[in-house]
Amino acid sequence: MASDLTQLTDADLAAIDAWWRANNYLTVGQIYLQANPLLREPLRPEHVKPRLLGHWGTSPGLSLLFAHASRLIRLTGQEMIYLAGPGHGGPALVAAGYLEGAYTETYPEVTQDEEGMRRLFRQFSAPGGIPSHVSVTTPGSIHEGGELGYVLVHAFGAVMDNPDLIALAVVGDGEAETGPLEGSWKGISFLNPARDGAVLPVLHLNGAKIAGPTVLARKDPAEVRRLFEGHGYEVIEVSGEDLPGMHHRVAEALATAYLRIKEIQEAARTGGWDGRRPRWPMVVLRSPKGWTGPDVVDGTQVAGTWRAHQVPLSGVRDNLEHLAMLEDWMRSYRPEELFGNDGAPAAPVLAANPDGPLRMSAHPAANAGSGKDELVVPDFRDFALDVAAPGTSRAESTRQLGAMLAETYRRNPHDFRLFCPDETNSNRLGAVFDVSDRAFAESVTAADVSLSRDGRVMEVLSEHNCHGWLEGYTLTGRHGLFATYEAFAMVSAAQTIQHSKWLEESSALSWRKPPPSLNILLTSTAWRNDHNGFSHQGPGLIQNVIAQRGSVSRVYLPPDANCLLSVADHALRSRGYVNLVVIDKQPQLQWLSIDDAVEHCARGGGVWSWAGSDDDTVDPDVVLACAGDVVTMETVAAAAILKERLPRLRVRVVNVVDLMALPRPVDHPHGMADTLFRELFTDHVDVVFAFHGYPGAVHQLVHGRPDADRFHVRGFIEEGTTTTPFDMTVRNRTSRYHLVMDAINNAGRTPSGATELKRWCEEQLRLHHEHVIAHLEDMPAVRDWSLPVPGPGEG
Amino acid sequence: MASDLTQLTDADLAAIDAWWRANNYLTVGQIYLQANPLLREPLRPEHVKPRLLGHWGTSPGLSLLFAHASRLIRLTGQEMIYLAGPGHGGPALVAAGYLEGAYTETYPEVTQDEEGMRRLFRQFSAPGGIPSHVSVTTPGSIHEGGELGYVLVHAFGAVMDNPDLIALAVVGDGEAETGPLEGSWKGISFLNPARDGAVLPVLHLNGAKIAGPTVLARKDPAEVRRLFEGHGYEVIEVSGEDLPGMHHRVAEALATAYLRIKEIQEAARTGGWDGRRPRWPMVVLRSPKGWTGPDVVDGTQVAGTWRAHQVPLSGVRDNLEHLAMLEDWMRSYRPEELFGNDGAPAAPVLAANPDGPLRMSAHPAANAGSGKDELVVPDFRDFALDVAAPGTSRAESTRQLGAMLAETYRRNPHDFRLFCPDETNSNRLGAVFDVSDRAFAESVTAADVSLSRDGRVMEVLSEHNCHGWLEGYTLTGRHGLFATYEAFAMVSAAQTIQHSKWLEESSALSWRKPPPSLNILLTSTAWRNDHNGFSHQGPGLIQNVIAQRGSVSRVYLPPDANCLLSVADHALRSRGYVNLVVIDKQPQLQWLSIDDAVEHCARGGGVWSWAGSDDDTVDPDVVLACAGDVVTMETVAAAAILKERLPRLRVRVVNVVDLMALPRPVDHPHGMADTLFRELFTDHVDVVFAFHGYPGAVHQLVHGRPDADRFHVRGFIEEGTTTTPFDMTVRNRTSRYHLVMDAINNAGRTPSGATELKRWCEEQLRLHHEHVIAHLEDMPAVRDWSLPVPGPGEG
Repeated sequence: MASDLTQLTDADLAAIDAWWRANNYLTVGQIYLQANPLLREPLRPEHVKPRLLGHWGTSPGLSLLFAHASRLIRLTGQEMIYLAGPGHGGPALVAAGYLEGAYTETYPEVTQDEEGMRRLFRQFSAPGGIPSHVSVTTPGSIHEGGELGYVLVHAFGAVMDNPDLIALAVVGDGEAETGPLEGSWKGISFLNPARDGAVLPVLHLNGAKIAGPTVLARKDPAEVRRLFEGHGYEVIEVSGEDLPGMHHRVAEALATAYLRIKEIQEAARTGGWDGRRPRWPMVVLRSPKGWTGPDVVDGTQVAGTWRAHQVPLSGVRDNLEHLAMLEDWMRSYRPEELFGNDGAPAAPVLAANPDGPLRMSAHPAANAGSGKDELVVPDFRDFALDVAAPGTSRAESTRQLGAMLAETYRRNPHDFRLFCPDETNSNRLGAVFDVSDRAFAESVTAADVSLSRDGRVMEVLSEHNCHGWLEGYTLTGRHGLFATYEAFAMVSAAQTIQHSKWLEESSALSWRKPPPSLNILLTSTAWRNDHNGFSHQGPGLIQNVIAQRGSVSRVYLPPDANCLLSVADHALRSRGYVNLVVIDKQPQLQWLSIDDAVEHCARGGGVWSWAGSDDDTVDPDVVLACAGDVVTMETVAAAAILKERLPRLRVRVVNVVDLMALPRPVDHPHGMADTLFRELFTDHVDVVFAFHGYPGAVHQLVHGRPDADRFHVRGFIEEGTTTTPFDMTVRNRTSRYHLVMDAINNAGRTPSGATELKRWCEEQLRLHHEHVIAHLEDMPAVRDWSLPVPGPGEG
Repeated sequence: MASDLTQLTDADLAAIDAWWRANNYLTVGQIYLQANPLLREPLRPEHVKPRLLGHWGTSPGLSLLFAHASRLIRLTGQEMIYLAGPGHGGPALVAAGYLEGAYTETYPEVTQDEEGMRRLFRQFSAPGGIPSHVSVTTPGSIHEGGELGYVLVHAFGAVMDNPDLIALAVVGDGEAETGPLEGSWKGISFLNPARDGAVLPVLHLNGAKIAGPTVLARKDPAEVRRLFEGHGYEVIEVSGEDLPGMHHRVAEALATAYLRIKEIQEAARTGGWDGRRPRWPMVVLRSPKGWTGPDVVDGTQVAGTWRAHQVPLSGVRDNLEHLAMLEDWMRSYRPEELFGNDGAPAAPVLAANPDGPLRMSAHPAANAGSGKDELVVPDFRDFALDVAAPGTSRAESTRQLGAMLAETYRRNPHDFRLFCPDETNSNRLGAVFDVSDRAFAESVTAADVSLSRDGRVMEVLSEHNCHGWLEGYTLTGRHGLFATYEAFAMVSAAQTIQHSKWLEESSALSWRKPPPSLNILLTSTAWRNDHNGFSHQGPGLIQNVIAQRGSVSRVYLPPDANCLLSVADHALRSRGYVNLVVIDKQPQLQWLSIDDAVEHCARGGGVWSWAGSDDDTVDPDVVLACAGDVVTMETVAAAAILKERLPRLRVRVVNVVDLMALPRPVDHPHGMADTLFRELFTDHVDVVFAFHGYPGAVHQLVHGRPDADRFHVRGFIEEGTTTTPFDMTVRNRTSRYHLVMDAINNAGRTPSGATELKRWCEEQLRLHHEHVIAHLEDMPAVRDWSLPVPGPGEG
């Protein structure tokens, strides 16, 4: 077979070249034309779109690779998906789906005839049409390629536990400059050739980005080769622009890479593997930017330069010379050979297509189709803590989740993974190691613990890799969880946002199967980063997730282990959401029995009557609300102090688990009904709300609720350092003493004893300060220590 | 000199070894002891801290490198700063400053005697003390090393335009796994050996991170070498744990690297350079994690494994065996040789220190001390647009800024740089190329435009590099601007947050000179990403910046060119802030003359009486407020419609430039006084606020203002695609027609004609829809197109 594969037959060459020309023709058509799609008549200005948008430069390279990958599929039956890192080459991928027929199967209006082709052109990059990038609307794609940097992480995630799949991932030389991309070549250090599929990266060096050359394109090719050999790859280079020479060489390069992959996998799957990390193949393709397009325009070199990045011929409606060049350009592909009289792709073109689901534009993996449909989630009640009474026992809540995740691993040996930057044990999720090691394909020593090439727990010190792998894993239909330190969730916040956008758009497409949710567990939170200090204290991701569309964004702040289990059960079973779950890993007070927790989480929040002192028959004098574990403890403590010291003050305690229950139902589907909201918060009583994150998050969520001004939110106001958990609450003015004073100051009436109690609270805080200041006098006053001033949004 | 430098003399060896032992002793002391610092008596449990925090594993490597770099400085007079990527090795850097005397100069209470040493130990990682990481409190540091990934970008930024400086940057093998770090080796592709200083990266492979081995530590060393040769470096390797062998080899490695740097610079500065990118040296140091610490504890190997990462001996107060091991460990450094009777560092230790400002813990560059004190900012009025009347002319506002930046380049040839991911021209800032090319050290061809090794405009397709370089550039005292696409500002949002935290803490330290502000210009905004679509539409960074401390965070939304110039003037002159400036690059209506703009920006916002229909003598019926360019246009248009169609309705138009003028003064120093707020917004009239970003941002900022519930904010509600700018406002319900209807619905009274006008608006929107739907019927309905439902936080 080897010789067949690496040698392009005449028939193959004809098919591939026809398909490629057809694709390039359709690409140019999408960018330029709104009528006369088959050039049946000479091109006139009115056939050209009034506004020219799109990216030509990368497109011919993308379609060339697509055509040659399709040949491999045809000849071998290999299952393959295609990820276009240069996603702005959208028209090439849309054209590929059209030529393969999948586009028409997905969008029946875009028929494979002249009228359909006109629609294909018209819709591109037009209002009401499709985006100019490869996007969620593109059949066969799991990768947008809008924000650059993630094509390899998506590809590696897609092939994990997907042994029969190859993900061909094109890396543009612009994208190759980004940090996340450079950090993602190391995916092979975590891949198991027996159990996982393979990624075939193609670094497409066409020399330029928007406005200039790229680093890799201008480095000595020997240096580039060394770089990727250093990353662990076998580098297969192909370059040029001669035809048909390039077809032969690209075919040989892809076939060589393919055969090498098969050789590696075969060895690993039949016992012939020494266990060392294979040198996986990759291809470096050097071809001109804007290849086959206009060479020189108005006396300036365009092809092969950054000028070919977007629209190489401008002002075509007004410039007859440019119009003629456009027509020549399109006719250079000889459309009459490529499309029949009816406009449908002709036989020579169709010969290049693989069959049915093997077509890359129709592969089920790219539509959440790999893996089992349903995750086998164990009964979360099996991991519940026995909570006899609220606040009487302490436990590390995430440890219970760890046990649940271990059992989830056990029951889903091919469909579930945990992704975590080196912190699985630190986050108390280490029970998973009873079932699976950490994945590691580099050398392992006898002294290593829970680390092997067969492991399926993904630890790499890169939030970008963890997040992106999970995206690729879920977009191909499998399930997982990304657990990370709360503050460093901001490192991958851009990925969280872009994935949210993907899910938002995806949910509007009936043909898209909703992928399993992206579950993010934030632990080691701002309030309990005792020994790491200020750089590790930041609840910022909440700010970003609440701004996304309500159809996708979910934020949960379980106050204890049993609530966490209930939330996790929901998150793991769900599809199409970004579930952000925030809870600390340190030992913490436990509040609810598992039955109470289930009911509490189902409602999203509720009155904790055992904590408060109101009796439900009349409105309370003040509501103490809370969301988040540490602030919940302070709230319950404050309520206890008030109950003891001011027994006649009616204090209601409300705990909120589901943050998106706070907005109005019209603003978010989880928004609690107005009647429930009033049941909890009344419509006029002041609410002192202790919040885990920045106070402004709650202020914006309750906007529109009855008299939202009465919500006085306390939370993280960006005060922190290496200090005790209690001191953190003091610095951020959410301590029990602050909450007691806030409650008194905002209560509807002032019972006797209130002034004394406030004075007592001040005294407690003074004692705390004295203790710290005593400490300080013993130590350098490296920072002026005084009560922090209020932060933004606090009121 | 070469032979002197690479050969360690006996005297040097003695000094370095003594200094290193002293540093290790102080490091262990900081982690463990609260009393008996000199071990004058046998160690007892009460001498040990009750809670053991800190990171031992990386520390001996950090201090070894510090000692050897100091030797180079002593022997050559080289100016050097030290950046500890593994910033959790904080105690080693604190100990270095203490041994060099800079710590005591900075914090006089921490004397160089027994009592001072006790304080040094006590304060470490304790409430009221100092963080466990290298941080802003550490003299000589510009790098926190809390959130990993940025040590090389900070180092490269520090040496740009700093020809005499070498930044020694230690990269931990954990950090080396992150995307931002992997993407930052390419700094040398932008460095000019004649004009810039040099970065000397030391990749410190000690084999493990928190819980397991690292990728680079477990790869074949030949592969690692290839990787960095591929990045363009000359790799100098040194490894082992034998003493004094390692001292000799490390001295040789650092000296070789140093001499190579000097050779490169000498050639470049004396005309002996061929212009090709030099192969800059780097060092790969392999030494055991936790070197010189406990080898085996309780029968388990600790040194050399991840178990040495934090505190290798635990439970020391309760475990006499561990206590004895701790004492043996500390005594193994022979403290009696290292500290005098009074506890001060002894002569053999002091012999290792460079003098005065050459000490790395005291180098002025690490305290914003490089470059000129004041940026020479040209008169921004010179670039003003002539605006005869509001809304009568269009211009690309950022083009005026580009002209101002070009002049800023001209007047500050060594102290100002623009950083931008490949979009300087796209963002209309291309005038800077009249003064300076893009920097590029890889090969340049004749066809390249504005690209040379002498260029000082920094373009790399990596937000992480751009942001981080600017941080390093400003933290060493120089000035700059980071310009990027709005949506992709989230890629580097974590850096924005961490830098804010640095500035927040820095401002509380009197010895820290405030660095020039970090200026971020966001352009190509959500509203005008016509051809890129949804992935390019996201105003998320505002959400994060407004949550930072008011002492640092600034957000400006200039509505036109003259306001942008006024804001830019302020931002470029300022120190200690993160200035976020948001404005689009497309042609847009101009509103204010330069004089009006200056006054408007100084107040932060104001009434645009020419746009509204109220007369100042009585309260208006409704306020139309706006912040951001596109929504300002819609607001003015809405007011014009209302003025024409409902002349009796009193509509006030308020434009806000300085977003942080909205909060109360108690919440932000820019918060406008209550009287001014009432002058603009009254205290009871409903406000329809059209906002550039997510509506929730404004809702949270006005919280606490009189009757904040009356603010009805419209903004980006996460609706977008490739579409026209006007359609974007329709989809996000901020169009002029929506605003007119909102104004009527929220006005204090309903003048006659209101119902008709609302109907007319609905008709306009219907026509718009029809137009789009007509389009759609002509095209595949790839997405259900209907009026978007309200998004989160809209009300």
